[in-house]
Amino acid sequence: MPFAAPPPTIDDVRAAARRLHGHAHRTPVLRSATADARTGASIFFKCENLQRMGAFKFRGAYNAIAKLAPAQRGAGVVAFSSGNHAQAVALAARELGSKAVVVMPDDAPAAKLAATREYGAEIVTYDRSSESREAIAQRLAGERGLTLVPPFDHDDVIAGQATAALELFEDAGALDALFVPLGGGGLLAGSLLAAEALAPDCAVFGVEPEAGDDGRQSLRRGEIVTIGLPRTIADGAMTAQLGIRTFPIIRRRVRDVVTVDDARLVQAMRFFAERMKIVVEPTGCLGAAAVFAGTLGLHGKRVGVILSGGNVDLERYGRWIGRGASSNEAPAGGDAAATD
Amino acid sequence: MPFAAPPPTIDDVRAAARRLHGHAHRTPVLRSATADARTGASIFFKCENLQRMGAFKFRGAYNAIAKLAPAQRGAGVVAFSSGNHAQAVALAARELGSKAVVVMPDDAPAAKLAATREYGAEIVTYDRSSESREAIAQRLAGERGLTLVPPFDHDDVIAGQATAALELFEDAGALDALFVPLGGGGLLAGSLLAAEALAPDCAVFGVEPEAGDDGRQSLRRGEIVTIGLPRTIADGAMTAQLGIRTFPIIRRRVRDVVTVDDARLVQAMRFFAERMKIVVEPTGCLGAAAVFAGTLGLHGKRVGVILSGGNVDLERYGRWIGRGASSNEAPAGGDAAATD
Repeated sequence: MPFAAPPPTIDDVRAAARRLHGHAHRTPVLRSATADARTGASIFFKCENLQRMGAFKFRGAYNAIAKLAPAQRGAGVVAFSSGNHAQAVALAARELGSKAVVVMPDDAPAAKLAATREYGAEIVTYDRSSESREAIAQRLAGERGLTLVPPFDHDDVIAGQATAALELFEDAGALDALFVPLGGGGLLAGSLLAAEALAPDCAVFGVEPEAGDDGRQSLRRGEIVTIGLPRTIADGAMTAQLGIRTFPIIRRRVRDVVTVDDARLVQAMRFFAERMKIVVEPTGCLGAAAVFAGTLGLHGKRVGVILSGGNVDLERYGRWIGRGASSNEAPAGGDAAATD
Repeated sequence: MPFAAPPPTIDDVRAAARRLHGHAHRTPVLRSATADARTGASIFFKCENLQRMGAFKFRGAYNAIAKLAPAQRGAGVVAFSSGNHAQAVALAARELGSKAVVVMPDDAPAAKLAATREYGAEIVTYDRSSESREAIAQRLAGERGLTLVPPFDHDDVIAGQATAALELFEDAGALDALFVPLGGGGLLAGSLLAAEALAPDCAVFGVEPEAGDDGRQSLRRGEIVTIGLPRTIADGAMTAQLGIRTFPIIRRRVRDVVTVDDARLVQAMRFFAERMKIVVEPTGCLGAAAVFAGTLGLHGKRVGVILSGGNVDLERYGRWIGRGASSNEAPAGGDAAATD
């Protein structure tokens, strides 16, 4: 089409919040006296790792499927993902009386396949080396009349993800800055929509893995930059490019995109386990790791951080947090706090 | 004294709640669709692992120190503990403008010493093989005019711990049963006081490690039974006997005391990490492990579980949760829920 449709608005976000009410959890906003003391800021952690299926992705998937016409919903949905989006679509479809087909590589971890199946999805596997998951999903959509639910580049998905920041602004009060993990940009674009309406003075930052800074490059260049698949433990941010629906929103209002390396993600994971008693996956630590780095001039500020998810292979996680845990930098005991 | 003082009442508990307001956190009550599906019950997890310093112990210590006369508080307090009580007394004393001396064995983990010191306590170490920590604490109390804050066997400590169950009953509504970790009995006795007033029909259970079932034995015998130091990973429940203040309350109203073995504690820890994205220490898993065992006839019931703490050495924890994490029993992905 010659003219792009306008981006979603705060009205779309509020409508999404109404749809999600009673289905997604209003996740707690946790605080940590230790994190505050170390950074000099007042930090409000929005715990989407405690969201249903363990990540904010449930919000967008639910909103998108809930908005389908009854006939479409009845016919079912399809998604391709080996990560949180797969489980989000599976669970949301089940909750909404629809059915989900998820296209996953045949070498995906057995645990991920099992979890997605447990949420009621049909799984179609493919051979990474010879097939394209997009093509398979398109073919299934055509053959069976399924509707594709994209992981981030869709207005209803963006509006759904926005409800996490909406709740944070409502619960934490005025914030000077907000840090949001950035992969394809659904959560960041949504957070920007919420901030625009509820917290126009809040500086919103996207945070990417250092190895995959396509978002930062895109912002600098003023156009979507595509990179090779980044090598990082932040598997939820291993995206090659922003979306055509997310980028314009991000470009319009984001304060900046910053990056953190994997070592800082591991440090943050360990902090959350040791001091706040919560499990946060590497991608979920992006925003916090940027704040903990202490280079962003946040002293005295009220800072929001979205912890986007907590789905992590426990064997790898156990190694990450166990390593060096007896150092003085990370003493036992914690000071974790629910906002109350 | 010839006649024992009457036990604390719900008025003492409510007074403790007022003292703690704004100082202890009103910890969230989390839910899990997976836990509900697997047990057939509706389970409400009271997350004292998210309490300040990582355990319910802060409640009792704070209440006890807050109740001291100004002169006593000014002179300072003393505690002997190598566990959560040490950090609780240290943090509560700092918050209340008092000062804490903590007696710890000289071979305590460096991280525990550091954490207790970080909360502002003076640490006095002793040689386990030749000295008694009680004697040292008594001597320090005499020499310096310090007040001893016992870990469980004190009415103000019991009333403080009771506020966790008080909040749970307020937030979760009617419960058919409540499961509480049992060591010296402070948390269980407190929970019973709260239940007596707010939930008289709720069956309250204490849960001990199988290796240290002195509570169960005491209940059966009708008198406090002392056992040898139990060998269990539930270090917070490695008590040799109940207290003279906690036992009468427990005996009067507890429905029963049940036990779980260490293997079930590890399973529960893994469940909390994988499905609910929270870190719970072995002792904190006692109540949940009893419920997950599935032998207590809880189908269709509304069940409260107190997760008492989350302070655990990350290196051991990493090994516990990493082991066997890729089995089908514990698939990746989670369904964690904040009560909302």
